[in-house]
Amino acid sequence: MRTHERVLAYLEEGIAAGRWGLGERLPGERALAEDLGVSRPSVREAIRVLDALGIVRPGVGSGPNAGAVVIDRPAAGLGAAVRLHVATGTLPVRDVVATRVLLESWAVAQAAGRVVDRAPGTAAHLEEARRLLARMEDDDVAAAAFLELDQAFHLEFVRMAGNVLVEAVMTGLRGAIGGYVAVGIERLPSWPRTADRLRTEHRAVLDAVAAGDAAAASAAVKAHIEGFSREAGV
Amino acid sequence: MRTHERVLAYLEEGIAAGRWGLGERLPGERALAEDLGVSRPSVREAIRVLDALGIVRPGVGSGPNAGAVVIDRPAAGLGAAVRLHVATGTLPVRDVVATRVLLESWAVAQAAGRVVDRAPGTAAHLEEARRLLARMEDDDVAAAAFLELDQAFHLEFVRMAGNVLVEAVMTGLRGAIGGYVAVGIERLPSWPRTADRLRTEHRAVLDAVAAGDAAAASAAVKAHIEGFSREAGV
Repeated sequence: MRTHERVLAYLEEGIAAGRWGLGERLPGERALAEDLGVSRPSVREAIRVLDALGIVRPGVGSGPNAGAVVIDRPAAGLGAAVRLHVATGTLPVRDVVATRVLLESWAVAQAAGRVVDRAPGTAAHLEEARRLLARMEDDDVAAAAFLELDQAFHLEFVRMAGNVLVEAVMTGLRGAIGGYVAVGIERLPSWPRTADRLRTEHRAVLDAVAAGDAAAASAAVKAHIEGFSREAGV
Repeated sequence: MRTHERVLAYLEEGIAAGRWGLGERLPGERALAEDLGVSRPSVREAIRVLDALGIVRPGVGSGPNAGAVVIDRPAAGLGAAVRLHVATGTLPVRDVVATRVLLESWAVAQAAGRVVDRAPGTAAHLEEARRLLARMEDDDVAAAAFLELDQAFHLEFVRMAGNVLVEAVMTGLRGAIGGYVAVGIERLPSWPRTADRLRTEHRAVLDAVAAGDAAAASAAVKAHIEGFSREAGV
């Protein structure tokens, strides 16, 4: 095991054991290096890895002794991993599309179930989805802005479903999804016509969730995702 | 942006653009440091992050000029992220169980479909699943060994489904699943009795996939995962 990996293993064990809890600080670089009998650069490498994985953020302010703070942004860490694997080109778009269909059709069904159960927060999520849809319905919205709103609209139902792991995976896929959709738009015969159809489909998803109809919501989101992929040839 | 993040962004862009393809070497530390006008430690920090995310493995042999090799192990990177997030304690077991049910019931249905389609590799996957099941049916197998075989059995169907992203997520969940299952076993009234039931349930999953019955396979794996979780109270 290389030196920075020993540091990583030590920090991971301490976090798992609750020695450093969420929101607390790890010891500073110097203290860790002395305690473990390793070099400062090795400690820093381990901290950089934890930062990239979304486990800590760097200490602010007072120099090398301000230890990194334990945080939890699962989406950030998964996002970096997924984004880079898409960059290497070995994560095929068809697998990303299939995974989206699977996770999102589940998520909207859960979201519809929460409407039926009158679960807390439901109304706020629906309100936000309506607001995003209204902005997408503005005829002047540019394609790039539309796509930002589109992703936020989809993620709103994923958040509404209330599973942090699924949410982390979907948030992690954000870059990969944005990438294939942007490529797909270039290939469309007519963006305005497709945009109109997407608005109608979004409306169908929203209405089904708001009505608490899980089956209709799943079917609508599946048809929507697969339809775009087919039309755009991605 | 901190210095190592600039290096990371540069390398990511180059990988995405195909400048360094799979199996090829990045430039050595010294060359990268000179080209980018940054310090060697900053370069090394970026490379360590790419290594942890499963994007490169360190260059072997000839010192600082042997550049890291671009590889692709999405499961390694996602696995590290998921494992550490479970360690921080903010990824609830019920979310892991629900995600397993979702992904695995989809995977066995896909696997059954591949049997119907006589897709290549199908027979080898089924053969491996049978072999793992036979080893779990040995009465002398210890609980720890049983659990290893059990995870391998489940992952065999995920691999059989043929979606690299779902496979990466499930492989990444391996540590999290192993953790809650090990805790659950401690709480069981009788491990030998539960082990017997698990074997029967595994047999039902395998038979349904081998018969190409997607609905039966999904139902069997869902009942199996949720049943254990309920019985063990995790």
